[in-house]
Amino acid sequence: MGALHAGHLSLVEQARSENAIVVVSVFVNPIQFGPGEDFERYPRDAGRDASLMARAGVDSVYHPPVAAMYPPGSSTRVHVAGIGDPLEGAARPGHFEGVATVVSKLFMAVEPDRAYFGQKDAQQVAVIERLAADLDFPVEVRVCPTVREPDGLALSSRNGYLSPAERQAAVSLSAALRLAAEAFASGERRPERLQGILRARLEAEPLARVEYAEVVDPRTFRPPGTLAVLAVRVGSTRLIDNLDLSKGFSG
Amino acid sequence: MGALHAGHLSLVEQARSENAIVVVSVFVNPIQFGPGEDFERYPRDAGRDASLMARAGVDSVYHPPVAAMYPPGSSTRVHVAGIGDPLEGAARPGHFEGVATVVSKLFMAVEPDRAYFGQKDAQQVAVIERLAADLDFPVEVRVCPTVREPDGLALSSRNGYLSPAERQAAVSLSAALRLAAEAFASGERRPERLQGILRARLEAEPLARVEYAEVVDPRTFRPPGTLAVLAVRVGSTRLIDNLDLSKGFSG
Repeated sequence: MGALHAGHLSLVEQARSENAIVVVSVFVNPIQFGPGEDFERYPRDAGRDASLMARAGVDSVYHPPVAAMYPPGSSTRVHVAGIGDPLEGAARPGHFEGVATVVSKLFMAVEPDRAYFGQKDAQQVAVIERLAADLDFPVEVRVCPTVREPDGLALSSRNGYLSPAERQAAVSLSAALRLAAEAFASGERRPERLQGILRARLEAEPLARVEYAEVVDPRTFRPPGTLAVLAVRVGSTRLIDNLDLSKGFSG
Repeated sequence: MGALHAGHLSLVEQARSENAIVVVSVFVNPIQFGPGEDFERYPRDAGRDASLMARAGVDSVYHPPVAAMYPPGSSTRVHVAGIGDPLEGAARPGHFEGVATVVSKLFMAVEPDRAYFGQKDAQQVAVIERLAADLDFPVEVRVCPTVREPDGLALSSRNGYLSPAERQAAVSLSAALRLAAEAFASGERRPERLQGILRARLEAEPLARVEYAEVVDPRTFRPPGTLAVLAVRVGSTRLIDNLDLSKGFSG
């Protein structure tokens, strides 16, 4: 969706190391935003994005206008049931349908051999893997690690919405994940305890409001499992993060 | 879906005349059948189909098993809103979602330059045209005329379900379309009159039970328009037929 940061550029770097040609799509997709969400104010800076991509060695940028992607009368939607229903799917009705639809169109337009997504949006990646398998897209979905700020905050174009105080409060997500991973490494396996550790750290932060904090199976996104997934509102900004507790925290 | 008849073979013939290579898919698609519909008893005769296709000059047959198309865990569905909602969409909930999903997969597997469908399933064709445009499939959808028996009955693999008495009653569909087309040719444009002509002819047939008989816009499948569309149960067999009244009856 543009507003490129080092997380996006790590995808480009990985793609460049594995492919002859790298295409980046830049498209703020209206149908994956719900009513009242931040479609209008989502950051857009095509000029800055273009120069970052040129420097990163991107061969081609696919930057279609909304009216080309969704002309009048268009009405087809791709829905991934099951894995897309809980968590982000429940919190943002229609979100994954918008994602699955636009990714189908982007796959069709670019016909990539491999497509690169960030682990930051773990459930989105799972939805896209399911979609690619189910609709027989001849694409290999590659997942790249979450890139973090030095204090642990996962990079996100939405971090720019945060006030300085909120920016400080936002570290609570990665801090909670780190604490749960430490408990896991010490042998803690009880789901309610791991969830309790996540919630306690998040709820200690007055500017944060937990939407969900769960430990789920990374294949189904249902409990029980080892993938800690968080959605937290910091001020009016909604942030997500996740960590496979069995793999531990790094970055 | 196999159980090939002369309607299918006319699609092959058209395809052969316009392309170097002709691929036919043969797949009775479980997800486009509703509960209580005829998925189990739908006619299947792969041997006969294969010899008909060989004789018709088909280069390749794609005949996947159900478990390959819908392996355990698969959960993605393609939904075409709007044009797929009324008429067949209302009478058979989930039907067009099943059609749109399997056609997406077939398009992905075969990557055809052109795909051939029969006018007999007019709304299905409209759904597929919408789908192909919306998901950017690089395919040209070609529509071939309905092939009819000498007495007017549109060819359908389901005609084989009819008893001799039902087979006679089934001519009421094409007879109703012909009467409406004659009225249209004589200047009749009042929707309720055209619909009345359709219904009167169908209701004169004791073995027929009308599901819908409407005159709709061929682009939206909503009234008003010039496309007469029928769904009629003859005995326990559900038959459909259609005719653009402005083009008249032939065949």
